[in-house]
Amino acid sequence: MSFIDKYLKARKEKNSILCLGLDPALPDQRSKDTIHKIYCGDASDCIEQFCLEMIEYAGDYACAVKINSQYSLFALGFKRLSALNELIHGYGMVSILDHKLGDIGSTNDSAMYWMQKCHFDALTFSPYAGNIAEATGMAHERGLGIFVLDLMSNPEAEGFQKKCKFNKIPLYLRVAEDVSSADSDGVVVGATGHVREKDIEAVRKTIGSERIILFPGVGAQGGDVKKVMAVGGKNILINVGRDIIYDKNPRDKVMAYHKLLKIT
Amino acid sequence: MSFIDKYLKARKEKNSILCLGLDPALPDQRSKDTIHKIYCGDASDCIEQFCLEMIEYAGDYACAVKINSQYSLFALGFKRLSALNELIHGYGMVSILDHKLGDIGSTNDSAMYWMQKCHFDALTFSPYAGNIAEATGMAHERGLGIFVLDLMSNPEAEGFQKKCKFNKIPLYLRVAEDVSSADSDGVVVGATGHVREKDIEAVRKTIGSERIILFPGVGAQGGDVKKVMAVGGKNILINVGRDIIYDKNPRDKVMAYHKLLKIT
Repeated sequence: MSFIDKYLKARKEKNSILCLGLDPALPDQRSKDTIHKIYCGDASDCIEQFCLEMIEYAGDYACAVKINSQYSLFALGFKRLSALNELIHGYGMVSILDHKLGDIGSTNDSAMYWMQKCHFDALTFSPYAGNIAEATGMAHERGLGIFVLDLMSNPEAEGFQKKCKFNKIPLYLRVAEDVSSADSDGVVVGATGHVREKDIEAVRKTIGSERIILFPGVGAQGGDVKKVMAVGGKNILINVGRDIIYDKNPRDKVMAYHKLLKIT
Repeated sequence: MSFIDKYLKARKEKNSILCLGLDPALPDQRSKDTIHKIYCGDASDCIEQFCLEMIEYAGDYACAVKINSQYSLFALGFKRLSALNELIHGYGMVSILDHKLGDIGSTNDSAMYWMQKCHFDALTFSPYAGNIAEATGMAHERGLGIFVLDLMSNPEAEGFQKKCKFNKIPLYLRVAEDVSSADSDGVVVGATGHVREKDIEAVRKTIGSERIILFPGVGAQGGDVKKVMAVGGKNILINVGRDIIYDKNPRDKVMAYHKLLKIT
């Protein structure tokens, strides 16, 4: 089953395009948006239990879970990540590792070897080195879907991704062209800041209607849900992280987002 | 002590610009270039023991060790990575996590929180999202040096990094300008393929003489040592990975590279 088919199945079952974003930060890591409940054990135990609890809250309401490597990988390792994926799959959701992988072929394949071992369904990929077609082929060979980072919403991305031209085409549209010809499963497009409706429409036009656009940045980062639902097309995922997981009542927050992100 | 000063100290002590590249692949991961010795324990134990052994071989001959996240992070986690760094520092070498981090600020900071916890001295950073100045500030605040991925040697990097123009300047030179103004510690420049002497000279001219150019791709990837030593300037690191760690006699290979990469 292709990743897009897994996504369509989960989306239908949950009647939802909500993707739960897991960015688990420890209390000593920063001043706000951290795990505030006390769990037993060491840092790894704490992060694992927090993630398992959040997955349970979201199990009936989200169609996907996106685990952020930069918050979880040092603490969890492949056995604990496998345990998270087992629970995610138990609920019928798909699991995406937000890894922003971007290296030479042999190194990319090594990361995907581990992702396959952990039973992830898909990964995110960063195209600074190009290699979109090669990485897509490798991912599909290992049964993984691949989302290529396309247009991010941070201010500097406007310079690097929009103003930077590849044969007179903005870099993000060149990336979108590669995604289409390489048959990648989707792209990541920011939903805030300098990203306009017309940018999202241009990406959708370039990649076609079937591929998935994953929008991070809703909730705490201020992304406009209505904007992206209106112009993003049907096959989208709306990621909500901090606004759910650091709320006093994450389950209520998940249910509220589920209402907002129903497909029927 | 700044990362550049740590590097200068280690380089002087070892009389070497050799950086040992640790890309530990398990036997079931691919058909060649894998760990061939049998160690006790599970996959994580095996990778840890292999890395510790390689660090011991290189301890007197290399000035730095570069650990590749995509081969090690899923298996090792922060406790085992800390153990590797303890041994690296015990030998007076510096430790670089080849992570190619590249995300929004809060996520970058999360990765650096964990790198600091593991006692790494520096990281590699991928600039698709820009944010070079922000990431450099965050890294320095956490006592980490930062190498920005600049010009890679894989064929597609030529399109994305050289032919892609930012206000008429090739992207890799724009990145080098940002590295200079942000006061990052160094850049990563490929030593093979489409990368020419004049490209390396252009990078060095842009970043100034003090910053470090890290050259991967020597040895198994076919990079020309003499070329990069002739045009790279004084403050460089030559990374050799597979050609040492998968050799039948890694210690002999390390000693041979040490002879080639002496500074006096």
